[in-house]
Amino acid sequence: MAKKPKTLSDLFHDTLKDIYYAENKILKTLPKMAKAAQSRDLRAAFTKHERETRGQVARLEKVFKIIGKPARGKTCDAINGLADEGAEIMKEFKGAPALDAGLLASAQAVEHYEISRYGTLSTWAEELGHDDAVELLEATLAEEKATDENLTALAKSVVNAEAEEEEA
Amino acid sequence: MAKKPKTLSDLFHDTLKDIYYAENKILKTLPKMAKAAQSRDLRAAFTKHERETRGQVARLEKVFKIIGKPARGKTCDAINGLADEGAEIMKEFKGAPALDAGLLASAQAVEHYEISRYGTLSTWAEELGHDDAVELLEATLAEEKATDENLTALAKSVVNAEAEEEEA
Repeated sequence: MAKKPKTLSDLFHDTLKDIYYAENKILKTLPKMAKAAQSRDLRAAFTKHERETRGQVARLEKVFKIIGKPARGKTCDAINGLADEGAEIMKEFKGAPALDAGLLASAQAVEHYEISRYGTLSTWAEELGHDDAVELLEATLAEEKATDENLTALAKSVVNAEAEEEEA
Repeated sequence: MAKKPKTLSDLFHDTLKDIYYAENKILKTLPKMAKAAQSRDLRAAFTKHERETRGQVARLEKVFKIIGKPARGKTCDAINGLADEGAEIMKEFKGAPALDAGLLASAQAVEHYEISRYGTLSTWAEELGHDDAVELLEATLAEEKATDENLTALAKSVVNAEAEEEEA
């Protein structure tokens, strides 16, 4: 990095690039997870979230515009680690009854990463006086929380079904 | 890996090893974050969470005992990625006014990873009939959520103070 970022504005910009990279990575991962999912409901949830994620990327591009910076990502080690764990689950549990439970756990870990990032960005945007950015970030934050709740409900029904199958 | 994990029990055991590795990594990271923190409140929060984390590791060891397995970790790519991001913040923002805000963001991302993992593990433990494990996992989950809320409050006060300093 040529310049050392120092202020809250720099930190905001840096973290915006981090989540922009993360969302784009998620966009590439979701179709693979949808394809791997065994339950129709889980497949539908991943496909729905892929659509949502496209809208979230568009919102981030608006936030970049608000702060007068080009929309550009910056390698996010956290999302890469989370994606690696998801890929491992897909490989190790391929064809196994617990696959969907594992996919759900991976997806929820990703959701929580996003929830923490959008919460942080929204707090900082408010402090920096970027009110329009706050609105965009809060809209995405609400979607991520709703997705996480939806996945929690699905996780309970998936493990119930799986446990019944194991007993049968 | 010699054996392919297949069932929900395998997935539970695998994820338990993942979070056990993560908690031990966090135990090593927290003193560094406490040392780096500029605000006394943030330093105190990290030190308090280090104590809590020791208790959470002990709870995980009890859960391993409940399922009759040795307490052993398994490399968790997600926590390593999160830790790398935290280390980057400490390096890039050393001595900068926004350092504490960055440390808080990193810590909250870690908290959210843990919240997702303990939520998942608790759901699975319930399904698998490990009621004692559910109790232990829920106790930690409640602590992680409380820590995250505490950090959110701290993040708001830290960025307020930092913005005032920038203006002065």
